[in-house]
Amino acid sequence: MPLGERYGGDKSESRYCGIETEFDDDMPNLLSYNVHGGFDFVLATLMDPKYRPSLVDIDTSRSTALPFAGSDLVLSPSQWSSHVVGKISSWIDLDSEDEILRQDSEITLKQEIAWASHLSLQACILPTPKGSSCANYARCLNQILQNLGGMQLWLRIPMVKPEDGIEAGNPEYMREGDVDSWELWNSFRLLCEHHSQLSVAIDIWSSVPSAASVARWYGEPVRAAIINTNSFLTNAKGYPCLSKRHQRLITAFFDHSVQVVISGQPVHKVPVATSASNVDTQNEVGGWRHPLKAYLDYVAFLYQKMDPLPEQERFELGYRDYLQSPLQPLMDNLEAQTYEIFEKDTVKYSQYQRAVAKALVDRVPDEDASRVTTVLMVVGAGRGPLVRASLQAAEETERKLKVYAVEKNPNAVVTLHSLVKLEGWEQTVTIISSDMRDWDAPEKADILVSELLGSFGDNELSPECLDGAQRFLKEDGISIPSSYTSFIQPVTACKLYNDIKSHKDLVHFETPYVVKLHRVARLANTQPVFTFTHPEHSDKPSNQRYKKLQFDIPEDTGATLIHGFAGYFDATLYKDVHLGIEPSTATPNMFSWFPIFFPLRAPVYVKPGTPLEVHFWRCCGSTKVWYEWSVTAPSASPLHNTNGRSYWVGL
Amino acid sequence: MPLGERYGGDKSESRYCGIETEFDDDMPNLLSYNVHGGFDFVLATLMDPKYRPSLVDIDTSRSTALPFAGSDLVLSPSQWSSHVVGKISSWIDLDSEDEILRQDSEITLKQEIAWASHLSLQACILPTPKGSSCANYARCLNQILQNLGGMQLWLRIPMVKPEDGIEAGNPEYMREGDVDSWELWNSFRLLCEHHSQLSVAIDIWSSVPSAASVARWYGEPVRAAIINTNSFLTNAKGYPCLSKRHQRLITAFFDHSVQVVISGQPVHKVPVATSASNVDTQNEVGGWRHPLKAYLDYVAFLYQKMDPLPEQERFELGYRDYLQSPLQPLMDNLEAQTYEIFEKDTVKYSQYQRAVAKALVDRVPDEDASRVTTVLMVVGAGRGPLVRASLQAAEETERKLKVYAVEKNPNAVVTLHSLVKLEGWEQTVTIISSDMRDWDAPEKADILVSELLGSFGDNELSPECLDGAQRFLKEDGISIPSSYTSFIQPVTACKLYNDIKSHKDLVHFETPYVVKLHRVARLANTQPVFTFTHPEHSDKPSNQRYKKLQFDIPEDTGATLIHGFAGYFDATLYKDVHLGIEPSTATPNMFSWFPIFFPLRAPVYVKPGTPLEVHFWRCCGSTKVWYEWSVTAPSASPLHNTNGRSYWVGL
Repeated sequence: MPLGERYGGDKSESRYCGIETEFDDDMPNLLSYNVHGGFDFVLATLMDPKYRPSLVDIDTSRSTALPFAGSDLVLSPSQWSSHVVGKISSWIDLDSEDEILRQDSEITLKQEIAWASHLSLQACILPTPKGSSCANYARCLNQILQNLGGMQLWLRIPMVKPEDGIEAGNPEYMREGDVDSWELWNSFRLLCEHHSQLSVAIDIWSSVPSAASVARWYGEPVRAAIINTNSFLTNAKGYPCLSKRHQRLITAFFDHSVQVVISGQPVHKVPVATSASNVDTQNEVGGWRHPLKAYLDYVAFLYQKMDPLPEQERFELGYRDYLQSPLQPLMDNLEAQTYEIFEKDTVKYSQYQRAVAKALVDRVPDEDASRVTTVLMVVGAGRGPLVRASLQAAEETERKLKVYAVEKNPNAVVTLHSLVKLEGWEQTVTIISSDMRDWDAPEKADILVSELLGSFGDNELSPECLDGAQRFLKEDGISIPSSYTSFIQPVTACKLYNDIKSHKDLVHFETPYVVKLHRVARLANTQPVFTFTHPEHSDKPSNQRYKKLQFDIPEDTGATLIHGFAGYFDATLYKDVHLGIEPSTATPNMFSWFPIFFPLRAPVYVKPGTPLEVHFWRCCGSTKVWYEWSVTAPSASPLHNTNGRSYWVGL
Repeated sequence: MPLGERYGGDKSESRYCGIETEFDDDMPNLLSYNVHGGFDFVLATLMDPKYRPSLVDIDTSRSTALPFAGSDLVLSPSQWSSHVVGKISSWIDLDSEDEILRQDSEITLKQEIAWASHLSLQACILPTPKGSSCANYARCLNQILQNLGGMQLWLRIPMVKPEDGIEAGNPEYMREGDVDSWELWNSFRLLCEHHSQLSVAIDIWSSVPSAASVARWYGEPVRAAIINTNSFLTNAKGYPCLSKRHQRLITAFFDHSVQVVISGQPVHKVPVATSASNVDTQNEVGGWRHPLKAYLDYVAFLYQKMDPLPEQERFELGYRDYLQSPLQPLMDNLEAQTYEIFEKDTVKYSQYQRAVAKALVDRVPDEDASRVTTVLMVVGAGRGPLVRASLQAAEETERKLKVYAVEKNPNAVVTLHSLVKLEGWEQTVTIISSDMRDWDAPEKADILVSELLGSFGDNELSPECLDGAQRFLKEDGISIPSSYTSFIQPVTACKLYNDIKSHKDLVHFETPYVVKLHRVARLANTQPVFTFTHPEHSDKPSNQRYKKLQFDIPEDTGATLIHGFAGYFDATLYKDVHLGIEPSTATPNMFSWFPIFFPLRAPVYVKPGTPLEVHFWRCCGSTKVWYEWSVTAPSASPLHNTNGRSYWVGL
């Protein structure tokens, strides 16, 4: 039964908890024992561990069946697929020096996976590579992956990183060289070309590596976290519990849809329940408790005590890691529905209202308030939210205001007209149905208000639009926003990379996407990229930009793989009033913008202590604006999106 | 006029020698002066070096032309294209911190290349990147390369490598950090994705780096070697000459179709010619000599004194770096023409004759020679060359021989029959028209002779065929060959990589090619891969193989880029008689096999001192045999040719 429910209709896969079992050829009993004990699924060895292909007498082999645990008929198809994860024989070692062992391993691996496919299991768990080399294992698995139906393969990887000092959580996995286990996974998946059916099951030991090192896994396809009973501490009452570090890790994994699996023998003597009230009748029939129930209860407790998901996060659940093409609001007209959604972002408009209010007060001293009328133009008025915010700012500051609402979308202009009529703004607001770049204004503005920003700031061509509108701003006039800056940071984002790769073309690898980033590892702090300031009074103004950045990934992170760059923006609306999604300064509770993601055609492997050098260009042609990007260190990548061949924003 | 002729019909591009000139807006005069002086082409600056776009008054710019050196009409189209290489303004610096200079550089670069394209020049030479960073230069050039017609762009790169100690051959190119200039080129071309129109012009300074470091350039698209007059020494008679190291370099470049360009001012006072006999009337009209004629003469002298190309090399000229798919002699029947070519390889057959002779003598002592008849089977007899070699060996050793000639190609069997009749071998030779794997032999053989080897030894399925034939070899019988081993070494091979890339698919990157390797850099000694021994008496014989290799590229090479692996074989025919193409032990004057080339889908960058770890597999299925390969260090590549999806040899 699931660990709990964090919110109404919690569908997270991490609600399910499994148990690792030993080989048992009475599969129905094995399953019912553990399901009745409270676990949702079992990791079950499929083949008798004594079997070795090379020990089989060739002459008799044709008349005997392979020693699998029961036939497919002992469980129903849905029992197999919902409650059993196949565990591939742990003795296999495809990179052994012993050729017989290597060949036995290859044959067995293929036999067991074929059997698991026959059973329609959802997943199989593959033993950890025995040495630091895994090329033959990967070669064999990659062959299998090419014709694998729908099954997932979870490669079992211990979470170890040598600098952190390995404590013998599980000596079975100790191996020579003590490599950073992420490196092992990384080699494996690079050899298998990020195959989407290859994922990770992490073994969690009694020591957990540094936070930066652990965070790498949040960008990887981790499906299960296996906790050995040895890794549990004992609380004052004698019950198993986990260290704070483990708790943070498991909580983060829960948040990333990772399922927990309990493994090992009971090592805590749990006190017997003294009152009938805390006996769960379903799981403890006749007072029976599963020997690992105390560990399961603790994991359920961790699941249930997590902070509830904020409303906004719940609203955005369906958008997590879902790639969207950025809007082209200049070329295309937005739909009513899109306006509807954006207008609901009250935080954003209250920031605009604060900015306009401050600008009005700066522009007109109190003593002139009743005499002077400020001319404010909203360029890109849409269906009017900024008109409303401006009028409210005027009311709040008791300044007189004349508003021009300029909008190029004729459909939005219809709404604007009825809004003005409905609110009785006819004396104050003039509606202009025109592109701001073409409009011949009858007078000049004191304040120019716009909301033309994309997730990467300038990516919806705010600079070009405001350059066009600047003609009708007074020499000393104010633009709100007065400036904006884009930011990037390198990320591991296996899921996004695979989604892009599935298109099998260049275009998708040279397109930035708007995406609610979730299963990503943010590997370094953001750095600013391009800044635009309005009004722009320079001599030969250009909206072309070039920025070279160097990211130093913290050394304790270990080696990393960069799939691309997460992009954000921050805008100064007016003086200290800002608005943005750059993580360290993000405006709270604002939902109008998801981050942007710039992919890399080939992921870049970065060793610890090696700087990552990145270049971003904003290029402008006569009909379009586009970005190009590339990496030059640790080694050079191809230039992305040359001449805007794959992605551009139309002028 | 060309430097000379190394052999009849020498068409090598390296026969042409150019001269670097200063800006001169009298282009016809500039050209005729230098052509009459003996040079074949000029590197000519196209734009007045004083011009800067940012200094042009925008208002007047529309009415004035750009300050190019003459219009297109001052020379004929063929003069422009045959005799002028455009020299892009050397002041441009696209990676300057100075934004104005960067923008000026970008505008000028685009204007000049557009002009050169208008003139249909064959090539332009681009100034060396000024700093160690070149990303913006590469970005701009990559934009240009996307729409460039047929012109080549030669990026000018000095041949410098810091450990070798830079001597100030040309202080113009000295720059901070003193990077290995190959690294600069490598970044540039990786950013431009190995664009086939981007190549290199190398500046040769007075000091030449180590041989290993220089050799990297033989795998790169070097079009010109520019030698400054300062780099010449002075011989006893006062004439310019080059150091031995320079001579070796230039000779190697000549051999790789690299053209020499002389640059700089005359710095040698050449004695006046004393007799009319050594005055070249065409170039020295009225006693006039081009001031740089002595340098040109020395370069021509180097060209002419090169060793003449051996006949075999001349025969193979047309095959250099031309990728061929390996033969499938088991699935396909060879054509008469193919037999014809292979039979001409007398060296190969005399090695076989030696091997058979030794085997005969070992098998039959002199005292039994007249009594004992040895049964020899030629499996894969083709049109009979091995039958002939075997009979000659019998004659030479005075042993009695009975020959079975087994051949599966019915067309070749026709030839065999007429050969036997023609030579009167009817009593000795029995022709069997059958696949050796199916033949039911009437008796067992003492000696089994075959020539089933491919460039990579086992790649034409010799192991599988001989396993099939082993049934009819006596327990103590001899197989000729008795064993064979494949070898590989990592190479830089820009030309091959680009040829493969031009197919724009995966299949071509996962296919090994037979190719006469020429423009390649061999970066480490070969290492053995797979060995097969015949007859094979092991218990459970398998022709599957797995080999993991580590290559240590000599540190003084510097960083390298690996495009793939050159493959070879060596076969032991019998005892000390061997046959092979592995470079260090290759059988001289044998032409039946070119090397094989295993490409890498993504070139692998290897830093000095970093080992390169490579894995090769020979996989066997029921209907086919194939190789898979991958790199795991310095970082993991994808597995190539999984399940033989792109390349296989049919059984």
